[in-house]
Amino acid sequence: MAKLLECALNFSEGRREGVINDVAGAAQGVRVLDVSSDEDHNRTVLTFVGLPEAVAEAAFDVSAKAVELIDMNRHRGEHPRMGAVDVVPFVPVGEARMEEAIATARRVGQRLGEELGIPVYLYEEAATCPERRNLADVRRGQYEGLPEKLAAPEWKPDFGPDHPHPTAGATAVGARIYLVAYNVNLGTSQMEIAKAIARAVRARTGGLRNVKALGVTLKERNLVQVTMNVVDPFHTPLYRVMELVRTESARYGVPVVGSEIVGLVPLSVILDSVRYYLQLEDFGDDQVLEARLWGEQ
Amino acid sequence: MAKLLECALNFSEGRREGVINDVAGAAQGVRVLDVSSDEDHNRTVLTFVGLPEAVAEAAFDVSAKAVELIDMNRHRGEHPRMGAVDVVPFVPVGEARMEEAIATARRVGQRLGEELGIPVYLYEEAATCPERRNLADVRRGQYEGLPEKLAAPEWKPDFGPDHPHPTAGATAVGARIYLVAYNVNLGTSQMEIAKAIARAVRARTGGLRNVKALGVTLKERNLVQVTMNVVDPFHTPLYRVMELVRTESARYGVPVVGSEIVGLVPLSVILDSVRYYLQLEDFGDDQVLEARLWGEQ
Repeated sequence: MAKLLECALNFSEGRREGVINDVAGAAQGVRVLDVSSDEDHNRTVLTFVGLPEAVAEAAFDVSAKAVELIDMNRHRGEHPRMGAVDVVPFVPVGEARMEEAIATARRVGQRLGEELGIPVYLYEEAATCPERRNLADVRRGQYEGLPEKLAAPEWKPDFGPDHPHPTAGATAVGARIYLVAYNVNLGTSQMEIAKAIARAVRARTGGLRNVKALGVTLKERNLVQVTMNVVDPFHTPLYRVMELVRTESARYGVPVVGSEIVGLVPLSVILDSVRYYLQLEDFGDDQVLEARLWGEQ
Repeated sequence: MAKLLECALNFSEGRREGVINDVAGAAQGVRVLDVSSDEDHNRTVLTFVGLPEAVAEAAFDVSAKAVELIDMNRHRGEHPRMGAVDVVPFVPVGEARMEEAIATARRVGQRLGEELGIPVYLYEEAATCPERRNLADVRRGQYEGLPEKLAAPEWKPDFGPDHPHPTAGATAVGARIYLVAYNVNLGTSQMEIAKAIARAVRARTGGLRNVKALGVTLKERNLVQVTMNVVDPFHTPLYRVMELVRTESARYGVPVVGSEIVGLVPLSVILDSVRYYLQLEDFGDDQVLEARLWGEQ
């Protein structure tokens, strides 16, 4: 496969279809793989892939459109956010290497800062210091906390002005390996339970390595959700995450009622979980018919 | 995708590597997707795909080589068999329709009968009467029972002579939808338990629709196995089969120690089981990254 980059750009609109379409529509010259909007989160993940230069161009154009159409002063949603363009991660796919993704993150971050006047923090593999690797730390305080954050010397942005944009907040731009956005819905409306399970499963507070988790409410369905990012699904497989959520929720007599993978997921990640549940011995990725038919083209 | 046929040719050699390679090597002008040999079964499944005419040609050439090299008078193995070339099924893939697979089965069956002197029974969708649809019925009596079977008027073969070939037995040639060969290994060496579980899970004796099952011994590992064909994995998913095997084996205090899928399996079949075990809501086949990258080429 060619040297491709994937960009899973998160922007802060998940309710107004016209805005979502206009922002997503700004991605040209790349293959748009997925547009996943969440009304409770009031957030959309736009996933596109292509050669590095085309992906960088599209990421900038989408960001410019989001900045134009989204006013963060009016934004409410279940998911933490600090900007109209909240997160712009670049992921190496195929034969691309991490260095290519990091370089692209730096270039796009600089353009957002200089051309759109957005304060930009580089995170994960592109981070300029250890304190900025973790997205949760970069985003802490959210949009409302930006005036204070940007005034602090240790949070001087990597690009752009050190004061908030009047409507668009700040943006995190980075490079990382494939992440899986995985949400588990619980059969209860009690937020405290979702928070407790998130605390139990996330790495930072004593749970599984590579898991970030939050408890959120799904108002429409009168349920709560553990919303997670599995930042290295190749080492921490989805089944292990699900089984731990099941174990922890059993304590409260609360069932898992459903789950969702947001956006795309590599085949090998799916297969790792199938291998576990079906106790498969020696099942190769290349035993999937379509993988054999396409992979050899 | 083009109109392709897949052929999962089963021949009766699973131990002698030289013979396996020579027989499999006779498949030219097609894409060989998989060669799965089983020493206990003393059987190999050779899976190849291509345009219908090329697949028909390759199926004949592989059969001719198997007839040349395999002497059924010496054949011992755990899996029921009646011929050096035991089963030749054609499966429509991509945009091919069942009619194409049936026509190909008839043409190849005729060639095996006329050019190699092999008695041939058409089965499944290509069957010439209801009694011959089911492979188990066609194969009953195995190689050793062929002299008697071929003498009976109701088992006059569809092609070829109505007496056994001196060394190659008889062959079943047919057309069917995608079948998954799925074996489950049990933590016991007691054959009676494997047979009981096979009886419980197979359709014919009170189990799941679309499941054929037998109990066999894995001598090398001192275990027994429930070897199955799931003849319609799109309606009867693998997780349902596995869960029933687990339920039935629990009665004996016998654990499932592993399982295997032999040959290839369509992506949608894998995803059906992942959806069940991870309780996924609305997970599309096209959320698999590689499916999106390849499918749009």
